[in-house]
Amino acid sequence: MSKHFVFPVKIFPDDTDCFEIVYHANYLKYFSHARIEWFAALGHGLHDLKAKGIIFPVKHADLEYFQPARLGDELEILTTVTKLGRVSVTFSHKVRLARDLDSIICQGTVKIACVDEQMRPRKVPEFLCQAFT
Amino acid sequence: MSKHFVFPVKIFPDDTDCFEIVYHANYLKYFSHARIEWFAALGHGLHDLKAKGIIFPVKHADLEYFQPARLGDELEILTTVTKLGRVSVTFSHKVRLARDLDSIICQGTVKIACVDEQMRPRKVPEFLCQAFT
Amino acid sequence: MSKHFVFPVKIFPDDTDCFEIVYHANYLKYFSHARIEWFAALGHGLHDLKAKGIIFPVKHADLEYFQPARLGDELEILTTVTKLGRVSVTFSHKVRLARDLDSIICQGTVKIACVDEQMRPRKVPEFLCQAFT
Amino acid sequence: MSKHFVFPVKIFPDDTDCFEIVYHANYLKYFSHARIEWFAALGHGLHDLKAKGIIFPVKHADLEYFQPARLGDELEILTTVTKLGRVSVTFSHKVRLARDLDSIICQGTVKIACVDEQMRPRKVPEFLCQAFT
Repeated sequence: MSKHFVFPVKIFPDDTDCFEIVYHANYLKYFSHARIEWFAALGHGLHDLKAKGIIFPVKHADLEYFQPARLGDELEILTTVTKLGRVSVTFSHKVRLARDLDSIICQGTVKIACVDEQMRPRKVPEFLCQAFT
Repeated sequence: MSKHFVFPVKIFPDDTDCFEIVYHANYLKYFSHARIEWFAALGHGLHDLKAKGIIFPVKHADLEYFQPARLGDELEILTTVTKLGRVSVTFSHKVRLARDLDSIICQGTVKIACVDEQMRPRKVPEFLCQAFT
Repeated sequence: MSKHFVFPVKIFPDDTDCFEIVYHANYLKYFSHARIEWFAALGHGLHDLKAKGIIFPVKHADLEYFQPARLGDELEILTTVTKLGRVSVTFSHKVRLARDLDSIICQGTVKIACVDEQMRPRKVPEFLCQAFT
Repeated sequence: MSKHFVFPVKIFPDDTDCFEIVYHANYLKYFSHARIEWFAALGHGLHDLKAKGIIFPVKHADLEYFQPARLGDELEILTTVTKLGRVSVTFSHKVRLARDLDSIICQGTVKIACVDEQMRPRKVPEFLCQAFT
């Protein structure tokens, strides 16, 4: 099982603002999409997990912005797990240009909790533990 | 009871795109905010209506764009009811610059249905009928 | 040259709202992405067109909503040109579930103008005329 | 001159997702709005600053999420300056329910750089230095 996941993002006008760069809040959205697609690639769609009462709210996020992305840019989000807790998982997300994998647009760390529908902590599902260790 | 409602919108960077104008889809959001705040002004918060199983999905929308709005612009959404059906309501929304009420940025018509939690049609609540007739 | 374009959209949490359905304004965004990717497939990235001073603001949009899309749904946007003017193009967009191509989620018509950087009308570029006729 | 700024935010459906809570990325947007309105209250609209070539890209953001906000909630963003550098400013943003000022929804730290149109560092404008010291 691979220990990282690469997710592509293409920049459309609605990703950008009047400064002609990607609006800074959007990277959190791309990170979230990358995690969700990773889960899906492991066989677990977010809607199936939700139906089973397994929910992953974000508890902490940290983002560093290095250079702006712009209209038409094709980005890659490189995601790894940096900490696997009993009831939380911490991810690292690196954003780079697909045409220059040595570039660095933005880097983020996101900690998600695992909770049930009443927002009570629950054990991280086995499929994630197996995939990430 | 007044038969129209005026809702202010200020344009922030996230409202705009790299063409330095308000992204066209956002006007549907402003229209929705205007309707919700009108309902609230009539004493009915959307969350209270939702808790009672009264939901208003959009069924049809028509927008005409006249001139772009830009960063820092203060807009006014002038909303009226143009048709009050048994299980639907049609609104007209006119967007103009607050500093020039003769301007016209965008104009829209939005038809909302009234449904219950299973998306079955239900009668438009009395508070709306009274306000709009 | 094909006279239609199929664009896939996957529904993430940020596409939805607390009524657990796709927020109605987002379909205008998916329509826009579909047009942009069609242009790109014809060899013309939106950023290249923008750099040449060729801009396509939306002038009119009409949307009819048939049934809601939800978290995890995979949609297809089927796009055709319904009218090719000298300085404008009108598109039809049909949204259906990828798993049921007979379904209909939403249907829209969007008219875009072709303008220069000063928002003055300009002729629709040849590559579009050739592709759409 | 006050050393803090209070900015109200009301939660609409588009702020929330299918988990019926405010989508986590949106808090960065509210923080940005709070800073912009503070600048405006100090006499400097963002569009005026942009026209003068004074731009404030976000360089770093850190968010901690304590409890979710929901449809209809009225929030207050309490903003202070925690560090005033020569070419950057760091803000603290606390999000609480307007109806319970002892609550804590989310807390964030955002560092913005001051740059010119070519993204080169420039001195933080005097009006900010005076307001924040």
